[in-house]
Amino acid sequence: MADNKKLVEAITPMEEDFAQWYTDVVKKAELMAYSSIKGCMIFRPNGYAIWESVQKELDRRFKETGVENVYMPMFIPESLLQKEKDHVEGFAPEVAWVTQGGLEPLQERMCVRPTSETLFCDFYKDIIQSYRDLPKCYNQWCSVVRWEKTTRPFLRSMEFLWQEGHTVHATAEDAEARTIQMLNVYADFCENVLAIPMIKGRKTDKEKFAGAEATYTIEALMHDGKALQSGTSHNFGDGFAKAFGIQYTDKDNKLQYAHQTSWGMSTRIIGAIIMVHGDNSGLVLPPRIAPVQVMVVPVAQHKEGVLDKAEELLNMLKAAGFRAKLDDSDKTPGWKFAEQEIKGIPARIEIGPKDLEAGQAVIVRRDTREKTVVRFDELADKLSDVLETMQKDMLERARAHRDAHTYEARDYEEFKNTVANKPGFVKAMWCGDLECEMKIKEDTTATSRCMPFEQEAISDVCVCCGKPAKKLVYWGKAY
Amino acid sequence: MADNKKLVEAITPMEEDFAQWYTDVVKKAELMAYSSIKGCMIFRPNGYAIWESVQKELDRRFKETGVENVYMPMFIPESLLQKEKDHVEGFAPEVAWVTQGGLEPLQERMCVRPTSETLFCDFYKDIIQSYRDLPKCYNQWCSVVRWEKTTRPFLRSMEFLWQEGHTVHATAEDAEARTIQMLNVYADFCENVLAIPMIKGRKTDKEKFAGAEATYTIEALMHDGKALQSGTSHNFGDGFAKAFGIQYTDKDNKLQYAHQTSWGMSTRIIGAIIMVHGDNSGLVLPPRIAPVQVMVVPVAQHKEGVLDKAEELLNMLKAAGFRAKLDDSDKTPGWKFAEQEIKGIPARIEIGPKDLEAGQAVIVRRDTREKTVVRFDELADKLSDVLETMQKDMLERARAHRDAHTYEARDYEEFKNTVANKPGFVKAMWCGDLECEMKIKEDTTATSRCMPFEQEAISDVCVCCGKPAKKLVYWGKAY
Repeated sequence: MADNKKLVEAITPMEEDFAQWYTDVVKKAELMAYSSIKGCMIFRPNGYAIWESVQKELDRRFKETGVENVYMPMFIPESLLQKEKDHVEGFAPEVAWVTQGGLEPLQERMCVRPTSETLFCDFYKDIIQSYRDLPKCYNQWCSVVRWEKTTRPFLRSMEFLWQEGHTVHATAEDAEARTIQMLNVYADFCENVLAIPMIKGRKTDKEKFAGAEATYTIEALMHDGKALQSGTSHNFGDGFAKAFGIQYTDKDNKLQYAHQTSWGMSTRIIGAIIMVHGDNSGLVLPPRIAPVQVMVVPVAQHKEGVLDKAEELLNMLKAAGFRAKLDDSDKTPGWKFAEQEIKGIPARIEIGPKDLEAGQAVIVRRDTREKTVVRFDELADKLSDVLETMQKDMLERARAHRDAHTYEARDYEEFKNTVANKPGFVKAMWCGDLECEMKIKEDTTATSRCMPFEQEAISDVCVCCGKPAKKLVYWGKAY
Repeated sequence: MADNKKLVEAITPMEEDFAQWYTDVVKKAELMAYSSIKGCMIFRPNGYAIWESVQKELDRRFKETGVENVYMPMFIPESLLQKEKDHVEGFAPEVAWVTQGGLEPLQERMCVRPTSETLFCDFYKDIIQSYRDLPKCYNQWCSVVRWEKTTRPFLRSMEFLWQEGHTVHATAEDAEARTIQMLNVYADFCENVLAIPMIKGRKTDKEKFAGAEATYTIEALMHDGKALQSGTSHNFGDGFAKAFGIQYTDKDNKLQYAHQTSWGMSTRIIGAIIMVHGDNSGLVLPPRIAPVQVMVVPVAQHKEGVLDKAEELLNMLKAAGFRAKLDDSDKTPGWKFAEQEIKGIPARIEIGPKDLEAGQAVIVRRDTREKTVVRFDELADKLSDVLETMQKDMLERARAHRDAHTYEARDYEEFKNTVANKPGFVKAMWCGDLECEMKIKEDTTATSRCMPFEQEAISDVCVCCGKPAKKLVYWGKAY
């Protein structure tokens, strides 16, 4: 297994340098590559396949709630971007501008969408007239561009992939209900499919989306104790409707402004999968999201019958509904094992001449490396058990890690010490003033992650200024 | 059924004005809408759902041939676009240029991809070293931008959706084989799923892709006798490899240039579906591609038991694997029928109080409006038969229409007369000279659609100049 070691040696241990470990995993698992366009990344097949898996699962959940997919233009004329005041202030400084089309300069420059609220509103104002036209629940899968100087695979890049849902409702209550519903769709997906537990809560005014009345978020804790905002859902009230003139006649024939929401999840979530579940051998993918769930690896495959049996097992596993592959390349078994582990494939089946003789194969779990020897006829059932257990264990481990790295602080010294020395979430009370939020960020670089839905009163006073506390807040350093 | 008539009246008969009929169908079936961005269209839910269906079917076929999906940046720096001479000449005049990022002007302007050969090549040169790295068969689903002044839904717009496959091979033979393989994937998909028969052939040098050695195409005939290029597959030889330095060491340790292909199908194909199968009542979708295959329409739904039974039938059909919906809105049955027909949903199930009593329902085929009365317990089986027959009939009708509108011309007078008076394909011999091809286009506005794989010699001389003929060519006016 010398060569096994060699491949893995290329991954910096996460205890040594977490950022380097992350970069190594992305590179060795062939998830992404830097392109020659500054700020833009290339999704390689292994990375894009994870996104396809995410899309498939999320899209099904969206559609179950009545969402329909559409596609809007990628360009936004400057005048359209400017219609909603807060929105343009938030986004105009970070967009890419198209100023020339073909051989001619444009009369009005257009930006490449950083998000598509303005385009959806411009369309909704045309197709919504009556209460009968409501609700409208549209979503699109696309890429968006935000001008960034720094690039980190999945976490930060000029162009990234996401979905953006945009809905219109008759009443404020309907809009709020949809905002929370979609946040719950995200949280359930993350917990049940990605095995990542989430804190659900509301953003402070400082951290909310440009133009939103309220922004809700799901926040996850990475292995290094930093937080990652994993999905957001915004309630716009009737602000955009007033800016764009989206009105409908209600049942009493009165003209009303509509209420809107938007919600998005991006390829950042793949960064979360890597940083929550990965280990020093590479990526570890939760079985429910893994594009390949099991790799069949023949050992001594030149020996009579081994390759035939491996193929037979592959076909049997596929027929049983597993996403299975066979590595029949001319690499050594050790190299194949290391590759399967780096890529985070949840399980491998080892099958060699001795196994063949004994009528058995070995299932090896990626996360614990636990081996299970099984008879051929029980392979599918046992593999199913192994993957289900692994999925459950991964969520439990992630939850235990998060809980063990969630602290409470009752005064400012304790708060600063905790942020400085104990990577993780810090729960602390807040008076609600922007000033304190700014001071905390300046003093510690921790930001308010959210005001959790599950509020507790761990003290009566703001951890920063000592004035009466209004909200419990999760604070933390974040990606 | 007065209101039924009203909805349909809004569609201009195709015999009267085909272009207006097309626009009416797109609008009434709610497939697309014009956006306020000149040249850009909005894919509405009904239109986008067809594209999702196309994606699902094509993507599965691609993957079965070993293709992997990736995602490349949407921007191409000007210097990268310029690397291959023919390519830049073909595309530079029609791209959108980004010249400013955030608040700063760019040092080098970037275009929004009109196609991504240059980006793929730039990546392939980094990841291909040895013959062991070949072949590479990548594809991406994305939007591309080509600066257009005119806009027609699905057929022509500044931004459109497509897939672009880009492959790299060790030898010229492998590249040619992949080029043809993908053309066949397209043709089979069109025939078997979209019920559109295709002429397969090679483009003349004049019509081939900028930078390609050979371009192959599938050409379909629309209802009005115009042709529509429906998919293309290009063999690049080693031209791009030489321009970008894509080299590999072969088994003898010699450095070789790689051979490449690309192939694409776009949302234009939805235009083909509309113009091949649609009728004066609206869209007609082939059952295999229809996002909704059957609409259950209760008649007199206020009568006891009707709605319950309709829901029961819906659930039964869904369980049997049909993509089924129920229209339980408060519209009249006639209105619901008209809507189902406009949207091209292949079948509807009518169920009213009398049917309930008799233990039966009525299946109505969208294309022929043929009615079949069936017992509840045989509904799924009979519906399956109806849809299969309809799929088959649609292909046969389209083939018969194409064959009836495919003419032959042996001299130039006959050729000009045919093009002028008989909309359709004209088969005629060609000497191979660009001059004749140009003259034909100028005299008749017909272009060479392709040199079909199935060559015949319908005459010895070029239909235009009378010199010895080299190739049989399909000519026609085209979208």
